[in-house]
Amino acid sequence: MNKLLIVGTVAYDAIESPFGKTDKILGGAATYIGLSASFFKVQSAIVSVIGEDFEQEHIDLLKSRNIDLTGLETVKGGKTFFWSGRYHNDLNSRDTLVTELNVLADFNPIVPEHFKDADVVMLGNLHPIVQSGVLDQMTVKPKLVVLDTMNFWMDCALPELLDVMKRVDVITINDEEARQLSGEYSLVKAAAKIHTMGPQYVVIKKGEHGALLFNNKQVFFAPALPLEDVFDPTGAGDTFAGGFAGYIAQSENVSFENMKNGIIYGSNMASFCVEKFGTERMASLRKEEVLERLQQFRALTQFDIALEEEE
Amino acid sequence: MNKLLIVGTVAYDAIESPFGKTDKILGGAATYIGLSASFFKVQSAIVSVIGEDFEQEHIDLLKSRNIDLTGLETVKGGKTFFWSGRYHNDLNSRDTLVTELNVLADFNPIVPEHFKDADVVMLGNLHPIVQSGVLDQMTVKPKLVVLDTMNFWMDCALPELLDVMKRVDVITINDEEARQLSGEYSLVKAAAKIHTMGPQYVVIKKGEHGALLFNNKQVFFAPALPLEDVFDPTGAGDTFAGGFAGYIAQSENVSFENMKNGIIYGSNMASFCVEKFGTERMASLRKEEVLERLQQFRALTQFDIALEEEE
Repeated sequence: MNKLLIVGTVAYDAIESPFGKTDKILGGAATYIGLSASFFKVQSAIVSVIGEDFEQEHIDLLKSRNIDLTGLETVKGGKTFFWSGRYHNDLNSRDTLVTELNVLADFNPIVPEHFKDADVVMLGNLHPIVQSGVLDQMTVKPKLVVLDTMNFWMDCALPELLDVMKRVDVITINDEEARQLSGEYSLVKAAAKIHTMGPQYVVIKKGEHGALLFNNKQVFFAPALPLEDVFDPTGAGDTFAGGFAGYIAQSENVSFENMKNGIIYGSNMASFCVEKFGTERMASLRKEEVLERLQQFRALTQFDIALEEEE
Repeated sequence: MNKLLIVGTVAYDAIESPFGKTDKILGGAATYIGLSASFFKVQSAIVSVIGEDFEQEHIDLLKSRNIDLTGLETVKGGKTFFWSGRYHNDLNSRDTLVTELNVLADFNPIVPEHFKDADVVMLGNLHPIVQSGVLDQMTVKPKLVVLDTMNFWMDCALPELLDVMKRVDVITINDEEARQLSGEYSLVKAAAKIHTMGPQYVVIKKGEHGALLFNNKQVFFAPALPLEDVFDPTGAGDTFAGGFAGYIAQSENVSFENMKNGIIYGSNMASFCVEKFGTERMASLRKEEVLERLQQFRALTQFDIALEEEE
């Protein structure tokens, strides 16, 4: 089985949305990526940091998905990274209410020996220096390195972000971040500019409006599944990235054609994530549901215009 | 050849966008619909009204596309409907600067005798009473009636709009209008509610984010083609509707499967419309370009996830 190395936050979140409010619940980029990737035949590991307050049931959840936690450091007397946010009525924007870095402030990632030859590395949203630090430890060049980041690092650590971007194959960012990073409003132009910064493949996530995959002049689009209700978008982007990275790691194929499938699977997984608060839906999800939804994605997007009609 | 009857405005527009400004240029829903539908093998006719100021070159343009203008009334001494608007920087919203109804104020549509048996009727955006008045004149029940409308009529003529909605098969509206009409934020729920108002098929246009086609539990999505530059979105929705109606009229097939192709063609045509100001791009467009772009839509959306990977 291929190895997928996941780096990112493991956190507690408190979320308010028009549909309700949660106390501290399990969250974090690496958590969502790991849960999502666990639906594929991969051997995955999380490199992250938690405090002593991190609950055993959440460790157990990740372990039950066969995620290697050797690289999950517990800081004695420390507190787990905490984020709290409130979504606006349209769920497309949110205010951050609280960010407590806690143990994340001094995080020094250690890649376990047996994952230094991982086939795919998924660098979840974190300080770009931490992301680079993980790549430094790889003893075998990965077949694919995927980077997720956010506007915060563009504001506060742009040189470091540009450094790590030169070392990755795929970047996944949202539309507003792509515009900020490139200075281009058109996403086609934005992707072209981001290519020149390093990544050969640029994935632009547009939330409820789907995701675009660019590779030079080639472009592919995966829609979001139209849903009756979206309860909580938290983690949807990470779940998307986890589905993408998990599928690519499983299929051992880093062609553009196969990446198309990867972003379809990413959208597929993300469509579940938003159905309940936090990781709740991902924790209860079964593989059969994923395959059933793949058929829905087919029905949603596949058409057949006969050739003779084109003449 | 099948007959397509088009009702809507024929107008002059003055447009300001971040990319420039136009004097009075040709516009109007029926104009865009007619130009778009002319790329399909259909015999189409426009029912509309113009003033004496309407220029011969614009009559000639429509005639050159084999559009029957018997139903295009010229009001002696009258002035053509005029609209002026300014787009915001993101091109997703606009302010109306001027609306001069002129000859449209007293428009009484007369369907030409030889189009009272049209196969497809495309009711472009107009007062719902005018739209109903056109349906009243049909002597043979059309195979398909498509209705386009806008928020203005929901505000000012809702009972009349609800009346005409009961008489149509397909409604095309944008996302905000679907939300307003249904009172539902979720587009899935909005479409379900709009179904109960009459139309069996609901097409929700999301501009640069594509279009959704709903038929009860079935849903299909056509993305917008990612473009380097969008110059002017004016007429894109009408061009979409014209591509849809033109394709359906040509193919004589009103199944859901074929309507999928219809909205792909709608998106295809609209992707050209926005490339230049007003009708400029549609006037210079060649059929080969449409077919070439169909391949781009295929590449953009079609994927092939092998069955064995699903097990």
